[in-house]
Amino acid sequence: MSSTLPQIGFIGLGVMGAPMARHLLTAGFPLHVTARRPASAEPLLEAGATWHGTPRELAAVTDVVVLMVPDLPDVEALLDGPDGLVAGVVRPLLVVVSSTVSADGLRRLDARLRTETGELARLVDAPVSGGEEGAQAGTLSIMVGGAEEDVALALPVLAAAGTPVPLGPLGAGQVAKACNQMIVAATVLALGEASVLAERAGIDVGAMLDLLGGGYAGSRLLEVKKHRFATHDHSPSGPARFMVKDLGFAVDELRRTGTASPQTDVVRQVFTDLTAAGLGDQDTAVVQAYLEGLERGD
Amino acid sequence: MSSTLPQIGFIGLGVMGAPMARHLLTAGFPLHVTARRPASAEPLLEAGATWHGTPRELAAVTDVVVLMVPDLPDVEALLDGPDGLVAGVVRPLLVVVSSTVSADGLRRLDARLRTETGELARLVDAPVSGGEEGAQAGTLSIMVGGAEEDVALALPVLAAAGTPVPLGPLGAGQVAKACNQMIVAATVLALGEASVLAERAGIDVGAMLDLLGGGYAGSRLLEVKKHRFATHDHSPSGPARFMVKDLGFAVDELRRTGTASPQTDVVRQVFTDLTAAGLGDQDTAVVQAYLEGLERGD
Repeated sequence: MSSTLPQIGFIGLGVMGAPMARHLLTAGFPLHVTARRPASAEPLLEAGATWHGTPRELAAVTDVVVLMVPDLPDVEALLDGPDGLVAGVVRPLLVVVSSTVSADGLRRLDARLRTETGELARLVDAPVSGGEEGAQAGTLSIMVGGAEEDVALALPVLAAAGTPVPLGPLGAGQVAKACNQMIVAATVLALGEASVLAERAGIDVGAMLDLLGGGYAGSRLLEVKKHRFATHDHSPSGPARFMVKDLGFAVDELRRTGTASPQTDVVRQVFTDLTAAGLGDQDTAVVQAYLEGLERGD
Repeated sequence: MSSTLPQIGFIGLGVMGAPMARHLLTAGFPLHVTARRPASAEPLLEAGATWHGTPRELAAVTDVVVLMVPDLPDVEALLDGPDGLVAGVVRPLLVVVSSTVSADGLRRLDARLRTETGELARLVDAPVSGGEEGAQAGTLSIMVGGAEEDVALALPVLAAAGTPVPLGPLGAGQVAKACNQMIVAATVLALGEASVLAERAGIDVGAMLDLLGGGYAGSRLLEVKKHRFATHDHSPSGPARFMVKDLGFAVDELRRTGTASPQTDVVRQVFTDLTAAGLGDQDTAVVQAYLEGLERGD
């Protein structure tokens, strides 16, 4: 059985990547790693992973490489140059991008990669949601986009780290992640506007959100954030400034497809403005404080 | 026990009011009714309610009157004139407004009522959410605002029709209902923008919403509406045009309290525009069709 398993590479052993790589190893995949900080790979090496000095060396022995690095330039830095993955491609290599990046940037990168490697190397996108907790537990939701045969190769690998769902062509995972962030950001902002209004009208915000949560306004975010809105607790967790990048990707795709998005445009502006105002490191519930400081225009 | 129960009046025996009144009767309250269409009261009279020819006559024998009529002018029409409730006030009368109306209009009405009746008549507001289904089942969420002693009198009566929660001073129920609608409308619009984008990017919308519903984007509305967005089913249910009125009340309160609401302002404009475009009788999921017909401005 073990001899039929693909050789898996993993690069980007941060708070999300390290537990994901660990789950792949636990599932029995032969795992190959490299890292700028070799120390970050040590626990995996002790558990049986194989170390490679460069992405090029890693590419030469792997069938699938999962990348969990911050953004597209980081992905490109791993692919390009004399020590990059592309330089090591001697057989088919599937590069699974689990980072949240621009869908269109990814499509352009895939086209270039295929050209440069004579179709040997190609991309699948597989951004995740579920946070550090989901990564640790191996219960991430994984949004997968790519050509059918590539996705078929990636799914059993990703299944070790969570629940991968194929959604469409390359970029579909990123667009789905963008859609997730559009819904999340709009819901948080709606909860913020409602909370500020309610408090100014003399309402017990916690009691109101408890009540509304039992009806059509009920959501996972209302449950997770209601204590924050009731007590003005905006202490850091998921930083609000991440929404600027994520909603930027959303607007890029909305523009590319000519899709009107009056609400997302406004939500993105609010997160951009509150980040510029120095509130971006706080939890997204900080929309409450931002709105409290705004003057109404009419 | 029965002799200590307050005498209850109920006016507005429509799809919401009739089952609410029935629950009050079943709970053992002596129930008094009147209606412009006497036929609407017949099932309640057969079940033991007492008929009165006019609101004035009803007011003379009741301690608490619940009103479930469409809007504030309908409430005022029941209160004023020679046959109105006010003309019949000879002892303390608590008027419970369960309609969704303007919070500020309600506050002005309360002030006038107290003046005209020497404080004998006063208002409590108690708008509901949960729809016809909740009214039938007696499981409505009831958002209650008013002076403490008035709310204390209203709560056991309203408890027969659902779960009443005191939220603050008079108008607090209406403001909470407005907050509910702000959250609901923003969530539906976010789901609409995400669905149109996803479909144009080649994504299976139903599969995506299933996946996102398991994470932070999960909500009661996503569950209830996802089939509509996946299949473009906007057939009438809760008419989208109701949002224009409800978000209008929200914006009135946002203005009164000087609360900035960049998102609600946009959401209200979208529902106003789609209603003007003739889509207002469709389910709120019709935001999808509206967005598909819009051109992106940038």
